[in-house]
Amino acid sequence: MKTSILSALAILITLNLSAQPRQGPQFEPPPEGFKPASTNIFLANYPAVNQETREAIFKVVAPTAQHVQVDIAGKKYDMTEDTAGVWTGMCDPQVVGFHYYAIVIDGVRVTDKNTLTFFGSNWEMSGIEIPEGPEGDYYRFNKDIPHGQVRSIYYWSDINGLERHINVYVPAEYEKNPGKKYPVLYLVHGWGENENGWSRQGHMANIMDGLIASGKALPMIVVMPSGDINTNSDVREATGNVTEIYANDLVPFIDLTFRTYTDREHRAMAGLSRGGFQTCLTVSTHMDKFAWMGTFSGFFIRGDDGIETAFNGMFKDAEAFKQQMNLLFISTGTEERSPEQWVKALRDHGIDNVVSHVSEGTAHEWLTWRRALKDFAPRIFVRE
Amino acid sequence: MKTSILSALAILITLNLSAQPRQGPQFEPPPEGFKPASTNIFLANYPAVNQETREAIFKVVAPTAQHVQVDIAGKKYDMTEDTAGVWTGMCDPQVVGFHYYAIVIDGVRVTDKNTLTFFGSNWEMSGIEIPEGPEGDYYRFNKDIPHGQVRSIYYWSDINGLERHINVYVPAEYEKNPGKKYPVLYLVHGWGENENGWSRQGHMANIMDGLIASGKALPMIVVMPSGDINTNSDVREATGNVTEIYANDLVPFIDLTFRTYTDREHRAMAGLSRGGFQTCLTVSTHMDKFAWMGTFSGFFIRGDDGIETAFNGMFKDAEAFKQQMNLLFISTGTEERSPEQWVKALRDHGIDNVVSHVSEGTAHEWLTWRRALKDFAPRIFVRE
Repeated sequence: MKTSILSALAILITLNLSAQPRQGPQFEPPPEGFKPASTNIFLANYPAVNQETREAIFKVVAPTAQHVQVDIAGKKYDMTEDTAGVWTGMCDPQVVGFHYYAIVIDGVRVTDKNTLTFFGSNWEMSGIEIPEGPEGDYYRFNKDIPHGQVRSIYYWSDINGLERHINVYVPAEYEKNPGKKYPVLYLVHGWGENENGWSRQGHMANIMDGLIASGKALPMIVVMPSGDINTNSDVREATGNVTEIYANDLVPFIDLTFRTYTDREHRAMAGLSRGGFQTCLTVSTHMDKFAWMGTFSGFFIRGDDGIETAFNGMFKDAEAFKQQMNLLFISTGTEERSPEQWVKALRDHGIDNVVSHVSEGTAHEWLTWRRALKDFAPRIFVRE
Repeated sequence: MKTSILSALAILITLNLSAQPRQGPQFEPPPEGFKPASTNIFLANYPAVNQETREAIFKVVAPTAQHVQVDIAGKKYDMTEDTAGVWTGMCDPQVVGFHYYAIVIDGVRVTDKNTLTFFGSNWEMSGIEIPEGPEGDYYRFNKDIPHGQVRSIYYWSDINGLERHINVYVPAEYEKNPGKKYPVLYLVHGWGENENGWSRQGHMANIMDGLIASGKALPMIVVMPSGDINTNSDVREATGNVTEIYANDLVPFIDLTFRTYTDREHRAMAGLSRGGFQTCLTVSTHMDKFAWMGTFSGFFIRGDDGIETAFNGMFKDAEAFKQQMNLLFISTGTEERSPEQWVKALRDHGIDNVVSHVSEGTAHEWLTWRRALKDFAPRIFVRE
């Protein structure tokens, strides 16, 4: 029976190949001033975002549910049901950029079927992109410039004892210059996200394409690994140290697979949130491998540590640190915990090559990190 | 407040970088004989699959829900609640391979938070991989052979009036042979899925890596486009003809971007379900571009059409068809609608280069299509 339904459905659909307007409340046109979010699934009109106020309307088909809410940016909004079992709700104006959200059905947080999912907080969550005006052009697709590729690669890690998935951004010119080598930026996601975060939620390829096309950043390879240590079903207990995997499995694999410069002057590492912390840990224990570093919303120093003892004493000898590290970039949004005291402490300690970047009006969220990458990437590597 | 919670969480997590066993019922060890599915999120132990019987156990945390079920392969199974609000359910033995499924909470179909999501039936569904023995090695990662890359690319389509996302598999040797050209297979997904289906649900890269490493298939580029015509928020009405996009936007873009042979003898097209139908439509209207074709679970002929009139009369002149088309490959699972009458009709009509492939014991599902690709890819293109 399953088979015959599927076959019948397939036949029905194939008879009409063109994409037609779909039936259902999620496909009805949104009200004046609202447009479907770019994160919606194929042809869905909801969630719809007001282009002026940045409010969003959500629709959920759930005739058997008792209570439905939309949960976005830390606030739950009750939805109201019409006679056909369609629930509608609207949220307050949202900050520009990408936001995770959930639908709450009878108290259980679930996804909105009208959106694509994005791995965050360790589950596949719904996401919504709140548009803005021309400022956001730097992270949108620009048809008038050349585009790099994000390559999905599995490689074997001896330390992990398992294949590991990475994404590698390769600049547009890479294949046109078969004799040219490139510097490499290792770019890490945060807690609860995965190696797809920077390319999907962060639009890093659009950002890098624009920076490279305009000459603001040098053409570079960007490697986006997983910050978690996956295990297989037979050994489902976490083992190993992810910083060792980065330095001793991943870096050699990249240098073998791509046309890279393999000296430290041509290698940078940066990460957001926990990825910033992992960057500090990895660089501090492998100073021979990296000469540029950035931490976006993630300059965390452990409770008992001060500048002298943090990260294996990396900053203790300020002169030695400055000689080795061309850049220490620390970024944060104004609406989240500030690293200002640590930036001041670093400078007071003599580390005056710290660059402090602030994202106005944003919290621990993707607009902060898109802006950070846009500011960071032009600062690394030296034109030959 | 949102910010401080996130920051506190981030700090908490970063203080313990190693991946530790997680708390919660989904992280408790499964019973004897059961193992976590490979489709689970990071470290989740459920769903867990019995390696012998192929039954699966699911766990859902939903203390406020009234009724929870798991819905897999066309059958709903009631789950039972313990005193802590954790619902547990077990399904019947499943066919080997990949299956979509949903959790039903108070009558509403939602995802299982313990699994990754896979785009199917036009929403981001939960998926579960049911393992099998050595037969399945062909679609699993093999650490002892070279691996190709799946490249995620956005290109501008004039016909669509929008950027289109494609995935392109490039064989392992591609970058080691900068002077060599490659044949191209265009491989299309089915209704309700998207351009990620073949690489994620289908494991096509593992299949191709194995076929190429063993010499069974020639090194080739495999292009996986979207079979839907996305529209932007300003023009959210479907326009255009996807077969025209394939032939007149996509093929030229690929030939410009990759080192391809650009003659029809080096170009094949295949698809599953609706993608098989799209293959027949595209090839029939662009016989000058393709010399090999395959349709997996998708040889659909419209109601009024017979062999002579189907697909713009492509088969009418059997000799002419055979002269142009080196292979017509028609595949199906034994548990779905059979194309046998059409295969017979084609042969009776003189088209004796039809290859009919049957997948034993499988329905309209991914194991059918993994097997079809494994059988099809070695048959296309001619060794130079």
